[in-house]
Formats: sequence, C-alpha cells, structure tokens
Amino acid sequence: MASSDDRVAGSDTGEDCPCRDGMFDTLEANRRRFIFGAGSALGAASALALATLPARAAEKAPPGAVWYDVPEDPTKVPGRPVAGDGGYGTRSQFETAVRIRFPTPNANTSWSLTPLASLYGNITPSGLHFERHHNGIPTIDPSRHSLVVHGMVGTPKRFSMDDIKRLPSVTRRHFIECSGNGLTEWKSPKGKTVQQTHGLLSTSEWTGVLFSTLAREVGLKDGAKWVLGEGSDAAVMTRSIPLEKMLNDAMIVYGQNGEAVRPEQGYPLRLLLPGYEGNTNIKWLRRLQVSDKPFMTREETSKYTDLMADGKARIFTLDMDAKSVITFPSGDMKLPGPGIYTISGLAWSGRGRILSVDVSTDGGHLWYPARIESTPEPMCTVRFTFPWIWDGKPAILQSRCTDETGYIQPTLAQLLAIRGDHGPYASVYHLNSIQSWAVASDGGVSNVHA
Amino acid sequence: MASSDDRVAGSDTGEDCPCRDGMFDTLEANRRRFIFGAGSALGAASALALATLPARAAEKAPPGAVWYDVPEDPTKVPGRPVAGDGGYGTRSQFETAVRIRFPTPNANTSWSLTPLASLYGNITPSGLHFERHHNGIPTIDPSRHSLVVHGMVGTPKRFSMDDIKRLPSVTRRHFIECSGNGLTEWKSPKGKTVQQTHGLLSTSEWTGVLFSTLAREVGLKDGAKWVLGEGSDAAVMTRSIPLEKMLNDAMIVYGQNGEAVRPEQGYPLRLLLPGYEGNTNIKWLRRLQVSDKPFMTREETSKYTDLMADGKARIFTLDMDAKSVITFPSGDMKLPGPGIYTISGLAWSGRGRILSVDVSTDGGHLWYPARIESTPEPMCTVRFTFPWIWDGKPAILQSRCTDETGYIQPTLAQLLAIRGDHGPYASVYHLNSIQSWAVASDGGVSNVHA
Repeated sequence: MASSDDRVAGSDTGEDCPCRDGMFDTLEANRRRFIFGAGSALGAASALALATLPARAAEKAPPGAVWYDVPEDPTKVPGRPVAGDGGYGTRSQFETAVRIRFPTPNANTSWSLTPLASLYGNITPSGLHFERHHNGIPTIDPSRHSLVVHGMVGTPKRFSMDDIKRLPSVTRRHFIECSGNGLTEWKSPKGKTVQQTHGLLSTSEWTGVLFSTLAREVGLKDGAKWVLGEGSDAAVMTRSIPLEKMLNDAMIVYGQNGEAVRPEQGYPLRLLLPGYEGNTNIKWLRRLQVSDKPFMTREETSKYTDLMADGKARIFTLDMDAKSVITFPSGDMKLPGPGIYTISGLAWSGRGRILSVDVSTDGGHLWYPARIESTPEPMCTVRFTFPWIWDGKPAILQSRCTDETGYIQPTLAQLLAIRGDHGPYASVYHLNSIQSWAVASDGGVSNVHA
Repeated sequence: MASSDDRVAGSDTGEDCPCRDGMFDTLEANRRRFIFGAGSALGAASALALATLPARAAEKAPPGAVWYDVPEDPTKVPGRPVAGDGGYGTRSQFETAVRIRFPTPNANTSWSLTPLASLYGNITPSGLHFERHHNGIPTIDPSRHSLVVHGMVGTPKRFSMDDIKRLPSVTRRHFIECSGNGLTEWKSPKGKTVQQTHGLLSTSEWTGVLFSTLAREVGLKDGAKWVLGEGSDAAVMTRSIPLEKMLNDAMIVYGQNGEAVRPEQGYPLRLLLPGYEGNTNIKWLRRLQVSDKPFMTREETSKYTDLMADGKARIFTLDMDAKSVITFPSGDMKLPGPGIYTISGLAWSGRGRILSVDVSTDGGHLWYPARIESTPEPMCTVRFTFPWIWDGKPAILQSRCTDETGYIQPTLAQLLAIRGDHGPYASVYHLNSIQSWAVASDGGVSNVHA
C-alpha cells in the first residue's frame, strides 16, 4: 500500500498515483467492467462497450465459473456428470463477486480488494484473497525453488521444497491485513463499499513449518536479534523481523486452505507472521538472513512508517491493532424496507484473540454486545452478528471490538489525536478506527464519518 | 455409494457396475488421463493417445490453473499484474491434483474422490471436495430457489434464499464422509492410493442457519419425531432424519469455505448433518417435511443399510464412527531412502471430537502417540503427525484413533466379527477399520491387509 507515500516519494515504478478524490470512480467503473464483462477472461472490453450488451452478457459465466443452461425444473432433466469440470470444480455461474484492482497506473505495482460483503463465515476463498504486489506475480517452478537460511547461524543451509515439507508442520488460521487497509478513509469517507474501505483483509488456514523448527536445524549465534526475509519476485521484497517474533509464531507456509499457497499469495513459499502488517509476510520467500540489527530496507524506511502528531515518524509498526467492520448492511447496499435484519461483520486483532464486539445503531450512543459465531483464535478474524429491528428511520451502524489485551478499537477522532493531521503528508497506514454506515430512510446505505 | 448394492439390486440407472476386481485399473487409467491430459478441460482424449505426447502435454495447465511461461530467474522479469485472472484467482500451474471419478458406467450416477495425499492441513479446497451424485449436478438459479418446511408444523412456510440469509447464522467446520468410503477394501486391499481407499472424505467451513432457528419460525407439533429432507436434483434425493438430530446441530448451509456452497455440494442450499453419513446431507435442498415416523425412502431401505453377521440388516446407521488414515506416506508413493520422515494423516469421528491418535510402524505391535496439529473440534477432521526414522527395512504403517466417547477405531478383523462376511452380499457401507500401508525395502508403499 503506497498511494499516499507515492505522492510524496514517487510510486514503486516512478509513475504517479491517481489522486484520491477521483480514484473510486475509476474503481467503480472497473468493478462494473468485471461484473458485466466477466465473460472475457481479462476484462479487455471497455465498460462503455459492455453497457450496450444488456441481455446476453448476463449469460456469460463470471470469473471462476462455467456457464450452463438453467432448466425450468431441475428435477426433470439429468444434471451434469461427476467431476464435470475436469476434476477441479468451479463456483456457481450465479456467483459474481470478484476482487477489484485499485486503479494505480501500473497493474504490476498495485493491489486488489477482497469482496468482504459477499463472503460467509470466516475463511476467504483463495480465489478472492486480496493482493498487494510490488512488481507483479512471479511464476515459480517449485522443483527449482529453495530457501536459504544464513547470517548469524551455526550452519547456513539451503532447503528445497521437499526438505521443508519433510519437517514437522503446523496448521493455523490467521488473517492477513495490509497496513494500508482503509488508506482512503483518513480525511473523509471515500470508499463506497466495504470492499473499498476494508478489502485488504483476508483469512486463510495456513500450513507450514515453524521458523523455530528451521532455527533448530541451522542453530542461532549469540547476539542474533533480527531476521531479514527476502522474496524472489521482481521487486525482491525485503523486510526485517524481530527474532523474538520469528521464534514465537512465524511460519514458513506452503499450504493455504488445504492446497498449495496460491501464486498471488507467494507460491510456493510464504513467510507468515501472525498479526503483523501484510507487507512483512514475504511472498515467494527465498532467503532468511539472521543478524544483530534491522536491515533498514526501503520498505521499512521510506515506506510503511507512520508520521505522528509530534512530527516524528514511527518505524517498525508491525502489529495490526484490533479492528472490526460491519459487512452487512454496508455501503452501496439498499435495504428493501423496515423489518428484522441480522447485522453481520468481522473483527480481528494482531495482538491476540478478539474478546468481544459491540454494535451501535445510533452512531455510538448506545452499544449492545454482538454474538460471536465461533471460538476466537489468536490473530484470526471472528464473524459477529447482531439482530436489528429497523424502524425505517435514519440510523448509523457501527461496530467496536476489544481484544484480549484489553485494547478497545478507537473512534477516528481518538486515532487522529495520536496520529495527527499532516495535510498532504497524512497518515497512510494502520487506520483501525470504527467504521460508520449510514442507513437512510429509503434504505440506502452509505459510508460516513460519524 | 452403491457399487456392491448395485450388483444385487441394480444401479441407480439400471446399468451394471464394473466388477470390483478390475475397477481400479480403469480408475488408474482415468487418473493418468486427467493428470497428463489436463489441458483438455473435460479430458476427452484417451489415455493411450496422450501417452504419445510426452513433452508439450506437461506445459498445459492442469484443471483450475492457467499456464504461464516460467522465467529462468523470476527476480529479473516483471511478474503478472494484480487480479490478472479476472478477479478470481486460480491455483499454480504446477499443482496437478484432481478429483478422480469412480468408473461407473453412468457419469451422472457416480462419485469422485478427493486427492487426500495432496492436501495440507484440515480444510479441503472446494474444487477438490469429493462428489456423490445420484443423477448429476443440477443447475439452479438461487433467485428461483426456495425451501418449504411443512408437515407437522404450526405454520408451513416457504423460505426464499433471501429469507434464509436474513436469519441468524452459524459458521462451523465439519467433515462429510460418504458411508461408502472404502467400499472396495472389505475383502482385500484393492485401492492403490489413499485417494482410492479414503477419498470420499472432505472437510469444509460451513455457514448457514440452524434448523432449530427454522423450527422456531414454523413451530413443531406434538408427536413430531422425524424430518424428511428432499433435494431438487433429478434423483429427487430423500432421506429421513431424526428430529432430535435436526434440533441438535443440523444446519441449512449456503456458505462453504467463505463463499457460496459449490454446485457439486448443493448450491444454493444443503442440509448439513454433522457426523452423519454423507448421503443424508441432502444437496440442492428444497423441502423439509416434519412427521411422526420415518418415510422409509429407497435410499434408507434398499440402499444405505448394513447386513450384519446374524443375517439381519441394520437401517438408519447414520453416525460415522471414528476413523483415521495416514496420508503420507501412503499407497503408490516411493520413499527416496532411509532417513527421517514426518508421518502425516487425518482422523475424524461422527460422534464428537477426536481424543487421540496413535501410530504404529510395525503392523500394530507397538503404538506411539501422534501429535495432533490443532484443537479438535466436534465432527471435524484433525491433522496428526508423527516423526519416524526409517531404517530401510520393510515396515507396516498404521494409525488408530479414539474419539471423546471412548470408542477406539477397530481392526478389520474386529469389524468383520460384528459385520460378518456374506460373500457377494458383503458389507458396503461404514468401513472404518485401521488402514495398513506396507513400506518395502526399496521404499515403495502399498496397500495391504495386515
């Protein structure tokens, strides 16, 4: 996530990022293009051209699906055969949710957002996991990929994928959130949908080897304090991670939701740092260098730092603080009328388990405890729900979570008091304040600062 | 699962099922066809023709993937752009695992098996979830689908998909296992791979409405004891479920692994009965009828019953008993040589949580406790691991689990003592005995009865 930084320091590729105010119009056009033009795999046709194709276009399958004729009565005609999609199934043709790309000038240095309002439960389907790449997705043959662990170690070693898979493994569910999630929302409510405001968040079941297991294989020298992770993408992404975190719960993952890590998520190997900002979770991991000090790479000095109210900048702000958001109802939806609704949303914390979630329907005056759907796990999203009888009058919906450290999700005003307002140098990263959705008397839902 | 029954009573379509002894040769040819002929979406080319295409065929993407050129050094060329697959991602072109179809004569009345040996962790990727259809996969428009709840209720009601999604939801992880899982293994070890012997097992995160919530909407009459579930496929699948189970933990699910239930799993609505045999988990659910007695449908009288040692048949054998299997190493693999291996596998019980798993490497003489990767959840698989130093001598690997009821997974001999041996009328369903994999001194792994 580099939009605001880009305007200061130049984007990853030196191109300018579009100004914030207009970018969601482009984004919206982009979204429409994918939804209505989904039949063309890469959406090459323009939104304008597709707008002239009202009828047939709806009969094209969206990405990730295959189109079949729809019988009047499915009990009267035989269905499709077993494993009809060639042994790897696709979703229903009626499911159209897609990731949308943020309209940076260069699609290799960009990000895409998860359609949170279309998801159920807790896991993000791997095909809809958000992306953030600094120079595109590399294509890597796992038989030629390896991980080198060196630096302040007893015996430097190179691990092939087979070597890594032979070591004891763990499986854990964790979210990954880009620290730039919500970067457009600091000054005024810009994103129309929860996908636009919060879509740099996804949750997976991850499988891999603990770094502590690798550390036993290579041995650590006295004085070791930091570990550099390096990716094998064309950006050669590098970040410094405290050794304490690496030994505590860092995983070298090759499994995501039961199968191999997806190409956009680091195939064949990713560094998974539960609760840390997404950028540190190095994808396409090829090297870990142990050291006594941080490496002060570009992505932890000129980027991914936070200018504070006192004019100083924070660096290594690695933990993602507790955050929650209502995904139903959310921006750009329209409620059909007064009645009973089940408010639903997600809550998460980079510092441990979610303890509780509260919901307000009057802009934060009265708060009621929400129901959490499943037992909270460390650094993992939980789905919360709250029954709401809407009387048809304007309402402001908010959620607020507390994590097991006792930290309470702040209001935007509380957050700005600490982070400061620096005009064009405003904060980009680590916006975790309470999100407000206004419900108008006509049922329309919109993003507001309340 | 109807293979053996079919030979007695005729298959679903009246066609004969291939005899058991030869069927895995066909299955194997089928598997090779999908792996090597994966570029053709439906694998239309024959195994023979594809065997003459050694080089180029490997450069075709397998099902569920897109083929990209592989650079010599991925750090030296820009990668692919964000959301390059049209907003719904695909797996890596190097990942080739597919479901394989059991070679019944009619592909609409068949099943496909999950490639368990290729999976990581606990969740089954939705594209690889096993299938069992009785007349194919119907194509259903969710806007025209509804669920009727009637019979011994206060107020019969029809619920649209929108109605159902508006009710309070729950998200839970559960396995589904076809009661015919392992049907070929009663007499002698027939399946070569764990996909063939145990592949009618998959695990998902399911989201939906509890039946108890629907029951409060319609009200139940005194004397109600059973509920009929009916699917809207061309087989109009029907099963009778005890009301006690329905009120305890039955879910009407519309979410699977974060997105809509897949077409092969019942899109848009499935009855999910945690721990019950797969067939009762009615897909494409359209009707629930409350009654004071079971409906004695075809699928619970002529099928899905178990002839016992005393000549009587059990009916309504609904709970799946505790079972486990080692997925690495497993049949048809070859270990490269003596050394340290991490044995890995899955354990599950339809009656609650898995309490413990033991592993033997000497055919069941000595048993050692395995490590369970995550906190066991009710009616959900757990991944277990066990470190093994292979000395290069022949070995027999086995796993044995215990569930929280105290039930211990039996040996085949123990199971047969109860279930009996009825010659051509042998048991089909509910084989949950200990699986043995023989490791030869050359490292080859094969399915044995030990």
